[in-house]
Amino acid sequence: MSNDRFINALLRKPVDATPVWMMRQAGRYLPEYRATREKAGDFLTLCKTPELACEVTLQPLERYELDAAILFSDILTIPDAMGLGLSVNEGVGPRFERTIRTEKDVENLSVPDPEDDLGYVMDAVRLIRKELDGSVPLIGFSGSPWTLATYMIEGGSSKDFRQIKTMMYQAPELLHKLLSTITESVISYLNAQIAAGVQTVMVFDTWGGVLTTNDYEAFSLQYMRKIIKALNTGSGDDRIPAILFTKGGGLWLEQIADTGCDGIGLDWSIEIGDAKARVGDRVTLQGNMDPAMLRAPDDRIRQEVKHIIDSFGEGSGHVFNLGHGITPDIDPEKVKVYVDAVHEFSQS
Amino acid sequence: MSNDRFINALLRKPVDATPVWMMRQAGRYLPEYRATREKAGDFLTLCKTPELACEVTLQPLERYELDAAILFSDILTIPDAMGLGLSVNEGVGPRFERTIRTEKDVENLSVPDPEDDLGYVMDAVRLIRKELDGSVPLIGFSGSPWTLATYMIEGGSSKDFRQIKTMMYQAPELLHKLLSTITESVISYLNAQIAAGVQTVMVFDTWGGVLTTNDYEAFSLQYMRKIIKALNTGSGDDRIPAILFTKGGGLWLEQIADTGCDGIGLDWSIEIGDAKARVGDRVTLQGNMDPAMLRAPDDRIRQEVKHIIDSFGEGSGHVFNLGHGITPDIDPEKVKVYVDAVHEFSQS
Repeated sequence: MSNDRFINALLRKPVDATPVWMMRQAGRYLPEYRATREKAGDFLTLCKTPELACEVTLQPLERYELDAAILFSDILTIPDAMGLGLSVNEGVGPRFERTIRTEKDVENLSVPDPEDDLGYVMDAVRLIRKELDGSVPLIGFSGSPWTLATYMIEGGSSKDFRQIKTMMYQAPELLHKLLSTITESVISYLNAQIAAGVQTVMVFDTWGGVLTTNDYEAFSLQYMRKIIKALNTGSGDDRIPAILFTKGGGLWLEQIADTGCDGIGLDWSIEIGDAKARVGDRVTLQGNMDPAMLRAPDDRIRQEVKHIIDSFGEGSGHVFNLGHGITPDIDPEKVKVYVDAVHEFSQS
Repeated sequence: MSNDRFINALLRKPVDATPVWMMRQAGRYLPEYRATREKAGDFLTLCKTPELACEVTLQPLERYELDAAILFSDILTIPDAMGLGLSVNEGVGPRFERTIRTEKDVENLSVPDPEDDLGYVMDAVRLIRKELDGSVPLIGFSGSPWTLATYMIEGGSSKDFRQIKTMMYQAPELLHKLLSTITESVISYLNAQIAAGVQTVMVFDTWGGVLTTNDYEAFSLQYMRKIIKALNTGSGDDRIPAILFTKGGGLWLEQIADTGCDGIGLDWSIEIGDAKARVGDRVTLQGNMDPAMLRAPDDRIRQEVKHIIDSFGEGSGHVFNLGHGITPDIDPEKVKVYVDAVHEFSQS
């Protein structure tokens, strides 16, 4: 690979500068993304058309010196492939036609075949790898079992997670059964992405932070640990690194590091130096600028980038990122300020 | 006072059982609350009519062996008294007619006079104290400056805090100016509540958890520290204890304890034994059962109450509470299970 900073940082090998990418870097803040999306007609068609998914995946790399590409897709492809009837409307968010509430609902679910039922994702991976042509590594991803279960049970986004928490406290065994089916699906999905060519995998546990410490272990982390152990990542310095990201998971970094993952995604609430003091160099830390900072004047963005780099301190094992996805209102010029500042302030 | 468990626990004095109350204990889950609310016509009239506010404050104490009453009111009374035009509609949430966005908006604000502009709150405090007649202590409260500022700037509830974060990163001095005015208002408001008779004060920092560690210190905790220092709480064993509650603040317990507050409110994400290990017996810990647990079977609720009591362990300095407010859908019978279990499992 002509740029191996990102992989090297995940393997805690020396890097010439801190690698940087952004969650949702292929997204609505880019006019060229909006144009492709317009062409696709709707969000799901964009996800399900490998040529278009490839096109938007590559767009931010044309503009910025990013050190990794991330597959353009959605975390809800798995429940969609399970037949729940996904629709995504801007403003409304994702909705499922069918929700999972009963024993029968759970029993009727089956693990999707990644090449048959999610072939469009694997085709996109193969196409993007070809187009990237060894320039930067490609990140594949999945939602975490807990996070996918929240959407499947609630039927969409939620403020209070009422239905899933009711199931968790009233019928925990049923929820475990559902989480086991999702976990099997995630493993098969990520392993297929690896076979198709992704060079790093990331698990997004967007909603793990709404749990108690004990419930996080029992209903989210336990299943992510199973995923980490079952991935066909190879071993040693050629392995495919895996990153776990629990938004709101700052209290549980030690437990997350113990799963055997290579990297932990941090949201912006924690000071990265404090995180490093807690987990040492067992894992790489990815993050963690507040995405809202991209609305600041250029000097303030640069100051914050420098602060995070200084807070992380010496040594490899840092991948720069935002603490959550970039929002659609951001001026694309600000992203250049951010990306360039990371490389400038971290040159060794 | 015939029941001084709550105050004693806040002063880390011995108690015969762990005191318990609930955030939003006077709330929509109670049919008698809904009846009084119906009589009032709307939520704000209920807040602004001392007799009705007193009535709903006392309702949960008739049903359950709670160890404290909390003034029925709303955190948005201060910005309402500043003239922002508050309306509260169920389903929609609170809305302000006028938002604070510019230098001029901030300059035009003045600190409300608590007896003139918020006299209905002080009248309610005096009436409730009279009706309680020394049975249990009365808790007064305010929103934190940061949390009040989020509503004043956004104009209501927010998912992404876009406007206030933009101000924070683009015009931090303007936001500090606003926070200073709100802080003065909170100090004067809480001191008036103390003069009117509340026996504990609590500051609700509902949205402090959306900040980075440095921004939390600069834009939220700094101002709460000023409040703690400026309260007319008296001193020694007769003092009025003060509790700070930052939802999502589990990473910052040491800094919160350092403010000199008597108690820290915990949301449900942290294990209370871990919290105690971090802050020792410098402060009392209040919390922290997940409100969703009140939808569980009785045995599961009792098991969770016992778990939290065991996790806290020996010694005084624990006030049992939920990690956030009780939700309207809860069966009132479940609250009895919860309250009684706290006393049963903590009898010394």
